[in-house]
Amino acid sequence: MKRVLVTGGRGFIGRNCVEPLLERGFEVHTVGQTDFERPNGVIWYQGDVLNPIDRSRMLDVVQPSHLLHAAWDLTVPDYMSSSINYRWVAASLDLTHEFAAGGGDRVLFIGSCYEYEWGDAALDERTTPLRPRTQYGKSKAHLFRTVTDLVEATDISMAWSRLFFLYGPHEGRRRLVPRVITSLLSGREAPTSHGLQERDYMYSVDVGSALASLLDSNVDGAVNIGTGEAPPIVDLVSEVAEICGEPNLLRIGAIEGRPGEAPRVAAATDRLRQEVGWNDYTPRREALERTVSWWRKELTK
Amino acid sequence: MKRVLVTGGRGFIGRNCVEPLLERGFEVHTVGQTDFERPNGVIWYQGDVLNPIDRSRMLDVVQPSHLLHAAWDLTVPDYMSSSINYRWVAASLDLTHEFAAGGGDRVLFIGSCYEYEWGDAALDERTTPLRPRTQYGKSKAHLFRTVTDLVEATDISMAWSRLFFLYGPHEGRRRLVPRVITSLLSGREAPTSHGLQERDYMYSVDVGSALASLLDSNVDGAVNIGTGEAPPIVDLVSEVAEICGEPNLLRIGAIEGRPGEAPRVAAATDRLRQEVGWNDYTPRREALERTVSWWRKELTK
Repeated sequence: MKRVLVTGGRGFIGRNCVEPLLERGFEVHTVGQTDFERPNGVIWYQGDVLNPIDRSRMLDVVQPSHLLHAAWDLTVPDYMSSSINYRWVAASLDLTHEFAAGGGDRVLFIGSCYEYEWGDAALDERTTPLRPRTQYGKSKAHLFRTVTDLVEATDISMAWSRLFFLYGPHEGRRRLVPRVITSLLSGREAPTSHGLQERDYMYSVDVGSALASLLDSNVDGAVNIGTGEAPPIVDLVSEVAEICGEPNLLRIGAIEGRPGEAPRVAAATDRLRQEVGWNDYTPRREALERTVSWWRKELTK
Repeated sequence: MKRVLVTGGRGFIGRNCVEPLLERGFEVHTVGQTDFERPNGVIWYQGDVLNPIDRSRMLDVVQPSHLLHAAWDLTVPDYMSSSINYRWVAASLDLTHEFAAGGGDRVLFIGSCYEYEWGDAALDERTTPLRPRTQYGKSKAHLFRTVTDLVEATDISMAWSRLFFLYGPHEGRRRLVPRVITSLLSGREAPTSHGLQERDYMYSVDVGSALASLLDSNVDGAVNIGTGEAPPIVDLVSEVAEICGEPNLLRIGAIEGRPGEAPRVAAATDRLRQEVGWNDYTPRREALERTVSWWRKELTK
């Protein structure tokens, strides 16, 4: 019996993992502060992962064989530089220790491309140095290194996903793609930077599918979750504008780019495609169309 | 007003810090699960540092400007390899975050020579690589690296002591020096290994004094707490046997040495002596005599 506890099950990452986990035969339990439109058969527990009493209770009740730990706080405006990231490191370590002590089998964490030293070559799990520049990236890299040693003292196995850039339904409205879509669909101008930064953007539904596949595999350690392609952001937003039917409302270059931005951030995808065996990418056009459709409905609610 | 909260105040490390902190003008508050013979003016709170409710409560009540975090669990027999060390990493991160958020000024942690890659040269805070081989050492090194970044996102300053080998009153009975002393004072043989390993042993009372001095300084980052000298262990136990008046009960070589033991572990002490300015070592003979006296009284209780 594969029984998974998904923390942050209502979040942008966790939510997209639920359906693919069900399809893979997992009994799916989620924990979070508020309920959400869950598929049939998915159980939700009210709880705060930062609260140790809630953590103990949900592990006791669910007795999961698998843990997909997607909870983290990205809602504070300065989450990239905030010390709050370390509360999540602490909670994650405690959760992992307790999951292992309770007889769990396998845990999957959500890491980030922000752990890497960014450069023009594809960022590689085995060769690219971890040299994060933000507190968000630093905290994730510290957690990665610490849980890598922690699991050595336990019987559980561990995979550490590194997510790159995402778009898709349920994304936070202040993020790039939602900001452009909601502006254009409302008939407002959408200002962006020059958009020459090349970024590996992946459809969130595909990310959920890849994460479920990784959790269900026996691959250990860090695995990038990306497409391997990194077109300039201007291409992505232009395609979005075209799908929205408002190419003339896009104001490329109206916002100044951030100084020191890396020209290119792309994932090496060998581990994901070959070792995990996941290769089920939605074509970008289709993924963007579905994303725009979702926002269209959302805006008429 | 300097107000310090000492976690693990009853422990082998914390207990020795209390007097020197008082002498330096600190108002001293301690937290632990059981009370102990405290000097006048030292306040004790019953609490478990692993329990987040106790952590929050004691920070709320004490409102410390300084935190000396000496609590850690070394009582489990396999503490060197146990995953329990990571519960302490988690609790330490959470405590630090909350101490900073509550307006604290400065925190001092207890690290270990087990964080270093051991070699014949004096282990140096700035040049010796951190390559721990035990889970105890790994967890301490992870915590060191993580809090180093964490404090960057806060207004607190941080010092990280690295303790070497210790002896003195209140040490656990299974450790080397107490084992030899209590055997000899009871008229029993004391078997030891060949004793050719060279180790930097420091008197616990001096360690407490050095830690108080470090907390009261503005020195940041890692600071070794050691003597800089590392005589063979056989010299130390022979001196102990002589003081006990039972040199003939010492059975050197009766226990097999552990394979792969490092020949020498000694601290570089420049930071402690010059930057912190602490240099107040008790002469070894006197320190050992006081230790033996303490055990003599302890055994007649």
